[in-house]
Amino acid sequence: MNANNGMQRHETAQVILWEANELFYSQGYEKTSMREIAERVGISKAAMYHHFENKEEILYTLCTLGGEMMDESMQGAISRNEGSGAPIREQLTDILFDYTTTYLQHNKNFNKILLHDIESLPEEKKRVIKGYEKVNVHRLQNYLKRMMERGYMRPCELTTLTFTVFASVHWLYFWYDPEGSLSLRSVVENIVDAFWNGLKPVHG
Amino acid sequence: MNANNGMQRHETAQVILWEANELFYSQGYEKTSMREIAERVGISKAAMYHHFENKEEILYTLCTLGGEMMDESMQGAISRNEGSGAPIREQLTDILFDYTTTYLQHNKNFNKILLHDIESLPEEKKRVIKGYEKVNVHRLQNYLKRMMERGYMRPCELTTLTFTVFASVHWLYFWYDPEGSLSLRSVVENIVDAFWNGLKPVHG
Repeated sequence: MNANNGMQRHETAQVILWEANELFYSQGYEKTSMREIAERVGISKAAMYHHFENKEEILYTLCTLGGEMMDESMQGAISRNEGSGAPIREQLTDILFDYTTTYLQHNKNFNKILLHDIESLPEEKKRVIKGYEKVNVHRLQNYLKRMMERGYMRPCELTTLTFTVFASVHWLYFWYDPEGSLSLRSVVENIVDAFWNGLKPVHG
Repeated sequence: MNANNGMQRHETAQVILWEANELFYSQGYEKTSMREIAERVGISKAAMYHHFENKEEILYTLCTLGGEMMDESMQGAISRNEGSGAPIREQLTDILFDYTTTYLQHNKNFNKILLHDIESLPEEKKRVIKGYEKVNVHRLQNYLKRMMERGYMRPCELTTLTFTVFASVHWLYFWYDPEGSLSLRSVVENIVDAFWNGLKPVHG
């Protein structure tokens, strides 16, 4: 195999992943067959098996890529902000905006796959994928913890707070309409406003 | 058909729904067959069809029952609290605790079905089920709106706030462990504390 073949092989694998991702998203993992993916890519079913052993391997690869993408986003946004000296409210907005942009715009299928298709993976693979989520939760939790310890944030029960903040952004997948009147940026600002300033009336 | 037969027929339908619910939850809707459900109930596959036309009708019935349960919980908790004169923070805690108890304890499968299996229903049925969710969102949104209008709550962007509060309790399905160290009551109190008092440090 020469370098050119290696490149081509890599590119075909990318196209397979892309098309499988679209099919899993639109009609579900269970209902999608290797034949259908091959048809969309424009290669034979036999050629598919040069790249992926089976449908499960495609799903697993998609999940790990999605997990890595979310992890890089969270890690990058936290370290960029923590070093910036910006007010914590702005830091939180930037971190959550970065995260939601990554998963709603570049990675829209990952949430559905994570909530849904992951059940089709065997236990040990499921654990690897859920591991990405755990790492992400810990990164945010440790950031919030440092902010509380430094007195930049009111102390709250950390586990509940971390998952509640995650919930608020992951739930966007179910309700946020990019064609609607609220921009993603303003929705994230609204979320942070609710968390930051609280619901207690100012006069109360 | 006499009254006794009518009762028996009703009871068998209940058992079918119960067993189907357990199977859909544990192995997924797509993977569950009418034959499997019949076996769990202890009746013939033919007898099943006296009660439900097909698997889709079972799923749809489960979804409507789940939707009604969540709707009753939200409606009941809001009217009980709004008439109570209790402080808003306590009202919110009670409303969200009632809601989470209903769906985590009595209705644990509904969240999974709503997130996942609903995709297997045809569009018009999907709309009916999503209608329950919409009604619920509107009930909570209108409650929060009234509280803001009366000055009991700091004004926030209402759509984002409503979905964020929903997110915080629905997400419990993914992380809350009833065997863990936090009781459901204390988790709901922690959620309301974060929302009510905010993250802004008191001295800031």
